[in-house]
Amino acid sequence: MGRKKIRHYDSDSPLMQVPESTIRRMSMYYRLIETLVAKGVDQISSDEIGTMQGFTSAQVRKDLSFFGSFGRRGLGYNTRELKRQIAAILGLDHIWHVAVIGAGSIGSALAQYPEFADHGFQIRLILDNDPGKIGRQVGSLTVKDIARLEAEFAAAAIDIAIIAVPARAAQLVTDRVVTTSIRGILNFAPCQLIIPPHLVMRQENMALELEVLTYFIRNKNRDSID
Amino acid sequence: MGRKKIRHYDSDSPLMQVPESTIRRMSMYYRLIETLVAKGVDQISSDEIGTMQGFTSAQVRKDLSFFGSFGRRGLGYNTRELKRQIAAILGLDHIWHVAVIGAGSIGSALAQYPEFADHGFQIRLILDNDPGKIGRQVGSLTVKDIARLEAEFAAAAIDIAIIAVPARAAQLVTDRVVTTSIRGILNFAPCQLIIPPHLVMRQENMALELEVLTYFIRNKNRDSID
Repeated sequence: MGRKKIRHYDSDSPLMQVPESTIRRMSMYYRLIETLVAKGVDQISSDEIGTMQGFTSAQVRKDLSFFGSFGRRGLGYNTRELKRQIAAILGLDHIWHVAVIGAGSIGSALAQYPEFADHGFQIRLILDNDPGKIGRQVGSLTVKDIARLEAEFAAAAIDIAIIAVPARAAQLVTDRVVTTSIRGILNFAPCQLIIPPHLVMRQENMALELEVLTYFIRNKNRDSID
Repeated sequence: MGRKKIRHYDSDSPLMQVPESTIRRMSMYYRLIETLVAKGVDQISSDEIGTMQGFTSAQVRKDLSFFGSFGRRGLGYNTRELKRQIAAILGLDHIWHVAVIGAGSIGSALAQYPEFADHGFQIRLILDNDPGKIGRQVGSLTVKDIARLEAEFAAAAIDIAIIAVPARAAQLVTDRVVTTSIRGILNFAPCQLIIPPHLVMRQENMALELEVLTYFIRNKNRDSID
């Protein structure tokens, strides 16, 4: 009884439009499957993934189906193969060089966030413009002077910038960041940033996460989809 | 020419299922409209909201339409009214009492996050089990002993708990939190938590945000929806 060939994820193949909520769940599945592989579990079904993550198995199958067919009906998924494939989909098969701009409380916390390194995000740089912060240690990094942003980004071959400066400084910093060789920005400043079209940006906001939570608290007895 | 009556948002009325991505954009619209009201702008169109936020006007109208009809075709929205209504939808017409559990780097940063208070999230409590952290100041708060969690939650009338402890301690802490009068949990620990069905939980993860970013970097030339 031959094993059905798993279709390998090919980032050049035409795909359906993938909802952001699917991408977010793919990250969650990745964490679960990572744990299972570490525990020596070889196979997992969409039912099991769903139960462990609090989603329906239909949701799990639908999410994975955006990227091709990974498993074999009734047999489930090979955990190692699924881990490798989801890593390729999410870009985790690559070491990303990350710089944090702003050594305030959020920036410093991000620069020391242990899970980043585990998932291929190497924080190589933290910068600030405050003379009181420049030269200080944040975890294993020394805070560098933002005046040297372009040179530091080039030396560290930064791919991704995390903006963790006050809103009033965010666009100014971004205008300099976009002249470097970065490919994406994660913005923690509570404002919209203008970036050139070749770059990707994600807006992150802790208050927004609380607002989504309070929306769901208010609407607890109403079904919601995501 | 009579002004069309704005339908007030009524959280008890039956609504369509609202995608999470819509809720997230509602939070973004709220920030924009807040700024406009502060600047004295009275009216705004969905086109203008879209342009300022980087979405299409169709997206803006579709998002708002989940909650009734706010504006008048061709006239746009009254900013003060829209602000009030979105606040009601997101639960921002209420002061929420928030406790942060874990006074590590993420917990401490969250406890001092300035935008929380601006949006009705009052951080009233930060707790830890580390004797080296208990009694220390984090912003205007003193770190309390997690041994007194139940009593401290009751005294501060906590509505929402932010879990910012290591993964290994997260479920243990959660099992105590769920016995208090809280209504929701924002979990920063990199693990799934089991909670009783009457509560709402949101999983937050910085590494996940970076993974969504790298997915979009990888798939830059492909359309994506959200």
